[in-house]
Amino acid sequence: MSNTIVNEMKIVKAESSKIQDVDFDNIDFGRVFTDHMFSCDFKDGKWQTPEITPYQPLTIDPSARVFHYGQAVFEGMKAFKDDKDAVWLFRPEDNFNRINISAKRLAMPEFPKEYFFNGLETLLKLDKEWVKKGDGNALYIRPFIIASEPAISASPAEEYKFMIICSPVKAYYKDKIKVVIAEKYSRSADGGVGFAKAAGNYAAQFYPTKLVQETGFHQVIWTDANTHEYLEEAGTMNIFFRINDKLVTAPTSDRILDGITRKSIIQIAKDNNIEVDIRPVTVKEIKEAAKDGSLKEIFGSGTAAVVSPISAFKHGEEVFDVVEPENTYHGMFKRQLMDIQYNIAEDKHGWRYKI
Amino acid sequence: MSNTIVNEMKIVKAESSKIQDVDFDNIDFGRVFTDHMFSCDFKDGKWQTPEITPYQPLTIDPSARVFHYGQAVFEGMKAFKDDKDAVWLFRPEDNFNRINISAKRLAMPEFPKEYFFNGLETLLKLDKEWVKKGDGNALYIRPFIIASEPAISASPAEEYKFMIICSPVKAYYKDKIKVVIAEKYSRSADGGVGFAKAAGNYAAQFYPTKLVQETGFHQVIWTDANTHEYLEEAGTMNIFFRINDKLVTAPTSDRILDGITRKSIIQIAKDNNIEVDIRPVTVKEIKEAAKDGSLKEIFGSGTAAVVSPISAFKHGEEVFDVVEPENTYHGMFKRQLMDIQYNIAEDKHGWRYKI
Repeated sequence: MSNTIVNEMKIVKAESSKIQDVDFDNIDFGRVFTDHMFSCDFKDGKWQTPEITPYQPLTIDPSARVFHYGQAVFEGMKAFKDDKDAVWLFRPEDNFNRINISAKRLAMPEFPKEYFFNGLETLLKLDKEWVKKGDGNALYIRPFIIASEPAISASPAEEYKFMIICSPVKAYYKDKIKVVIAEKYSRSADGGVGFAKAAGNYAAQFYPTKLVQETGFHQVIWTDANTHEYLEEAGTMNIFFRINDKLVTAPTSDRILDGITRKSIIQIAKDNNIEVDIRPVTVKEIKEAAKDGSLKEIFGSGTAAVVSPISAFKHGEEVFDVVEPENTYHGMFKRQLMDIQYNIAEDKHGWRYKI
Repeated sequence: MSNTIVNEMKIVKAESSKIQDVDFDNIDFGRVFTDHMFSCDFKDGKWQTPEITPYQPLTIDPSARVFHYGQAVFEGMKAFKDDKDAVWLFRPEDNFNRINISAKRLAMPEFPKEYFFNGLETLLKLDKEWVKKGDGNALYIRPFIIASEPAISASPAEEYKFMIICSPVKAYYKDKIKVVIAEKYSRSADGGVGFAKAAGNYAAQFYPTKLVQETGFHQVIWTDANTHEYLEEAGTMNIFFRINDKLVTAPTSDRILDGITRKSIIQIAKDNNIEVDIRPVTVKEIKEAAKDGSLKEIFGSGTAAVVSPISAFKHGEEVFDVVEPENTYHGMFKRQLMDIQYNIAEDKHGWRYKI
């Protein structure tokens, strides 16, 4: 392995690439990783020299606080390759800002912007062969921070590890999904950490999701914990409703993630002169809209899922099918969003970031 | 190292003990671990052969789900040594039951009872020198389960690791603590995971706790997320109020941990003919009781803290001192509880468990 120091970063390159072993046409989300990873340790009150090394297991004490107290946050991003082999990120500054918003809420140190972008760019340049051209192909990028200090007292750690790992992906949800509106379980509380990409938010959803999957549905649509009357988000996606020609979505709050795909869709809708209503959405009105035919579409949005249409929802014992018009908003939004991401369309909002 | 298979358990003993390097009189909570650890992997749909090995770091993929989605639960237990060098656990069956209640809520596989007790007993026999005699000395035992599968899809893992690590401790909180009643932040939602010892519940409390610590207080007393009018728990402790001669504590719920120390104290109070009122407790009534002098004590209870008296609480801008009588309930409960734990008093409820 070659061992170089670049811009205060230590780089150890992999001796050979694993890429020839990967079947890019048949790839499960998040199970295959590129040749390298980026890491940076926080100790003695500061972030130490960042490193890029071959992708490899961590050596970590069983008493590391992340295992006991869930002090861990993450981001999800994608890199796209255009026809000329240029690699692009989509609004990476928003991911950078959000991981630090999440970190702050979990009493973790914020990661420096220069380290984040320098690490990201160097890593993507090294592993650029892993970003495949073609519609829907992308490199999923997972920055995360974990509390690595070996001490099981229930207080913020003094030592952390920031990492970026990358995994080649296709679209996350392949088919339309059927969802159940939560009536008993809940995802987050006012004054809690629902707005953050905090690790614990996700594990808490697995069991209720498993219960609905046992009944033939795919995901839970989370409602407010107090009344279960307001539709909030889908756990790994924000959620949109089309009522006649209007797009409706819940406002972000301390319970709801400020999704980057969510706000991009809101902008794209406005660019297409579609009226967007950002306001609390009740279960009651969506059921009524489904009954009177004014509910035209429901879809989730997220980095992994991009845009994910919902074909049916269940509330109590009632199941409502969503009968979409021929030309859907979600289809248009997805196309326009991906055309910006893949450097096909004009980038009038300055969302693309060239590696 | 010797390498033995006992009762379907693989045992690799440490070559030498680290115990002579430990200053047992000056020990920070949870930073020093015994010579051995217990671990058992779940894969291919079942728990594999358990192992006891020298205490050592884990080798784990950076994509392990525990780092990303917080799929992790734990327990806290203690072992005590009596004057005749016998080692005792306190109500370990309750910890065993609870870790599986927590595991189920986080969509993790339950751990078999035989493996749990066989592992615990074998580990404690190997490391029995680490359980020190003397009032307040104990060996803190930390069973935990983490999602170890290397895959970052947001769904329950297929592979897990159950572990037990042990750390010698003295009492957790040394002085009386001052607390702030939560008015903005919250710990858990109805329908959430507050009742479980889920890792993510703890990290979510660190930032609000840090904020109150910056104002000279120690801990947050969590209230219900909806109204902030009901006192629930202290995050790592359940909470009790003595109003005149009556003991009052909130009922357990899906937001409040079913503490083993909590229920032991309720039983001890009854054994002492103290009236115990288990009902929702309002912030308003406790403030009024502080003002009219009927509030005699507030204390937290938990395995780590045992019983932890609270000397003052803040609500909004008001600070209330708790002026305790000479003979406190918490002092009596702690003494009686520890006398049972250390095999000094009669164990009339069958709480002790001999190793």
